[in-house]
Amino acid sequence: MTEQEARSLRRGRAARREQREGGHGSLGRPYITRNIPVIDFLTDEGLEIIEANADTILQEIGIEFRDDPETLNIWKEAGADVSGLRVRFPKGMLRDIVKTAPSQFTQHARNPARNVEIGGKNLVFAPVYGPPFVTDLDRGRRYGTIEDFRNFVKLSYASPWMHHSGGTVCEPVDLPVNKRHFDMVYSHIKYSDKPFMGSVTAAERAEDSVEMARLVFGREFVDANCVMIQLINANSPLVFDGTMLGALKVYAAANQACIVSPFILAGAMSPVTVAGTLSQVLAEALTGCALTQLIRPGAPVVFGAFVSSISMQSGAPTFGSPEGTLLLNGAAKLARRLNLPFRSGGSFTSSKVPDAQSAQESAQTITATVLSGVNFCLHAAGWLEGGLCSSYEKFVLDADQLGMMHVLANGIDLSQEAQAMDALQEVGPGGHFLGAAHTQRNFEQAFFRSEIADNNSYEQWLADGSLDAAQRANKRWKTMLESYEAPALNESIDEALTDFMRRRKSEFPDSNV
Amino acid sequence: MTEQEARSLRRGRAARREQREGGHGSLGRPYITRNIPVIDFLTDEGLEIIEANADTILQEIGIEFRDDPETLNIWKEAGADVSGLRVRFPKGMLRDIVKTAPSQFTQHARNPARNVEIGGKNLVFAPVYGPPFVTDLDRGRRYGTIEDFRNFVKLSYASPWMHHSGGTVCEPVDLPVNKRHFDMVYSHIKYSDKPFMGSVTAAERAEDSVEMARLVFGREFVDANCVMIQLINANSPLVFDGTMLGALKVYAAANQACIVSPFILAGAMSPVTVAGTLSQVLAEALTGCALTQLIRPGAPVVFGAFVSSISMQSGAPTFGSPEGTLLLNGAAKLARRLNLPFRSGGSFTSSKVPDAQSAQESAQTITATVLSGVNFCLHAAGWLEGGLCSSYEKFVLDADQLGMMHVLANGIDLSQEAQAMDALQEVGPGGHFLGAAHTQRNFEQAFFRSEIADNNSYEQWLADGSLDAAQRANKRWKTMLESYEAPALNESIDEALTDFMRRRKSEFPDSNV
Repeated sequence: MTEQEARSLRRGRAARREQREGGHGSLGRPYITRNIPVIDFLTDEGLEIIEANADTILQEIGIEFRDDPETLNIWKEAGADVSGLRVRFPKGMLRDIVKTAPSQFTQHARNPARNVEIGGKNLVFAPVYGPPFVTDLDRGRRYGTIEDFRNFVKLSYASPWMHHSGGTVCEPVDLPVNKRHFDMVYSHIKYSDKPFMGSVTAAERAEDSVEMARLVFGREFVDANCVMIQLINANSPLVFDGTMLGALKVYAAANQACIVSPFILAGAMSPVTVAGTLSQVLAEALTGCALTQLIRPGAPVVFGAFVSSISMQSGAPTFGSPEGTLLLNGAAKLARRLNLPFRSGGSFTSSKVPDAQSAQESAQTITATVLSGVNFCLHAAGWLEGGLCSSYEKFVLDADQLGMMHVLANGIDLSQEAQAMDALQEVGPGGHFLGAAHTQRNFEQAFFRSEIADNNSYEQWLADGSLDAAQRANKRWKTMLESYEAPALNESIDEALTDFMRRRKSEFPDSNV
Repeated sequence: MTEQEARSLRRGRAARREQREGGHGSLGRPYITRNIPVIDFLTDEGLEIIEANADTILQEIGIEFRDDPETLNIWKEAGADVSGLRVRFPKGMLRDIVKTAPSQFTQHARNPARNVEIGGKNLVFAPVYGPPFVTDLDRGRRYGTIEDFRNFVKLSYASPWMHHSGGTVCEPVDLPVNKRHFDMVYSHIKYSDKPFMGSVTAAERAEDSVEMARLVFGREFVDANCVMIQLINANSPLVFDGTMLGALKVYAAANQACIVSPFILAGAMSPVTVAGTLSQVLAEALTGCALTQLIRPGAPVVFGAFVSSISMQSGAPTFGSPEGTLLLNGAAKLARRLNLPFRSGGSFTSSKVPDAQSAQESAQTITATVLSGVNFCLHAAGWLEGGLCSSYEKFVLDADQLGMMHVLANGIDLSQEAQAMDALQEVGPGGHFLGAAHTQRNFEQAFFRSEIADNNSYEQWLADGSLDAAQRANKRWKTMLESYEAPALNESIDEALTDFMRRRKSEFPDSNV
């Protein structure tokens, strides 16, 4: 075989693989750029009501900052009214402060082809974040381990529809709490070349995360560019605690992106109404975003909103609810008005298994995410049980749906070729389009190809073993892990990371707090 | 017990029942009036391109009318260019003709509280239409019977989220093809008091349906008002056949509503692109809608679009696809431009079981239905297997989702009470809203209560038997059928219907064509 023949064969294989993977390029796309308008459930009049109410909350009720005297001083110096732990803000103060934040920024990946744009018309999908449990159909529900963690990193890497490696894809409960951040950050770097998230569970763990990023990207590059994005939750209602503030300050000072997210289950941590909750979301997110700008003007920051409702029977969190959609959508408009990138959404569910409930709730949330103009979407795949469990099957079911969202966000192609007038002329009344020249020409690009859906006849489906979607997903994630190949990592970087981790881990004893 | 005590007890029961049924009133709402904007994926420029292409199709390619010389004459007299079976239309001709059609009309139910408004900002949900098979978790998949038919009528009647009794909720395969329309129409009248659909499988069956409606509503009332709505499919591409035309002519002449729906699986029955398919949809729907106005100007007519894609691997129909959403949404804009009510959407899936695939695909379609401004939604609940099978479990899963769509379509309440500033003042930083006065005051109305979703903890879910959503739905439809009570039907009307059916059935032999 000549080298030319070999190249040609490889190209053929790549084309077939591309086709199998949805016909949209084997590497996937680095992120979505929306070509469709956003939908707004909040009228302009509604927006003004919510903004005025948020101003009243900030001015009259205020926000509490716990276990962090430094932050209270920062606010005092900025001109806020500080009384004990409570800080009240003159009208317009925070809106002025956040004006230095970029409306869009690049998060760099170690593979520049994987860089993502956060803000504007762009949407970045990142995997599930935070669950202590993992589950799959074979082994059932159990505590997550570092092996599970690596598996979810590998699945995110392998999925053409996942743009980001995420953060705590599951808790590696087999590692000590005070040291597991090293292994998590390292796994993202080692087993993926997509952008990732740093630790926020303590200020020193945030410092460690930044230090590891410096080993990968270089100290100066990190100071000048965003290479990590972090999840900073408000302790709703109207509280920020010392842990989250500690991490926020480290990352903002290092010019790394914070997502300031009220974490709200409406009815418990906010009023039992959409309008009331939105005012609280705006007050909390605006406060946290402004704080990053006081620490380092121009540091990237994202207006976040993790907001859902609770069951009024049991008090349990509910997901994929219509109120959740209205909340997500309203918060998106609040963020746009501030010219800040917006984080929300995901593939949420409170179901315990990848069943109809889980799919219904997740479809509702992810569609709202895309149509509302979310810029950064955490929990885009893998989430079960209200976020307590990362599911292998759910991950690939969700990823398949994310692929469809890419097509939806592309909107309607109006090119001459897409208008297909030649096909209509060729086929005419009563004809069939499958054989038309236009169909043949557009065959490869036409229509999203799901990896999970079974569109066959009932008889064929029976012959194939009567599998449901979760059972097909079970096969799919195994194939993905089997065919996983790690992206190359520069050996000296790998060594530097390993050395750093070894040294730091030896400096303090293991602990599970 | 005094009468007052008894009344009070009944009120208490009614309140609890209302609460169980979602807190939105035990009778449900007669239809949705949307309080949210539509989303448009088709730009105004795109709209003009599609319209120009449809004009070209109508003018140059034309539409074929098979087995119906009368219709060819109608077109000739109206000024179209008729050549053999092919009819070509001068630019603008059809648009002029449909101007006599109402942009909104009332379909009357035998219970006036169930009347629905079709058009404008209104959305009416009707159940699955057409499947020869039925399935449930206990008995599996089998041919439908008149007993199944009645059960689905009863379930639609019992669901507060279903506005309409529909038509062929399943095929009663145990009855002869040429007589089953009597039993279907009678079942809708007898077992429900919601509006319903007539038979379209032959002109004389359409006549029978109208005659039965006259026995219920009175001859003059039927001539002056819409009491039935019917599904007239184009035989895409660009063909109408004699059967459908026969039914269309009967209903239009009787002032009853036709839904003129291209039934298109793009790639097979239309071009493999969204833009190409939309031009064809417009050409076909516009033609059929215009025909109703030539037969009886002012007769109610609905622009329909049943449009999805096919799998480019197998040629099998696919549902809930992103292309399906774009098609539905684009067609909605085409109908709005013509000032015609629009029919599309439903809870579609090609899955064989009520699993994650079925829920994902159905959620995608029903959300697109609500957000795109559909006015009449057939197949809103119960559909499996690309429409080949009516599922008992899927019906209640879908109905639950329809309930959520009611809340979504209501949008964001901006009333003083919903703004909840008193709750925020009362609770303050770090507090809890469950006990707040505002929460207590709004407890009953707050948040949609799903009848299917399990939001409990994993442990509680295990203790409850680890049921998935389909298994919970199985319990739910049985409860609904057990507690079903038929709405009263005037005895003399019931007798008249029974007599009519007996007489007509005796006039010709059973046949299965």
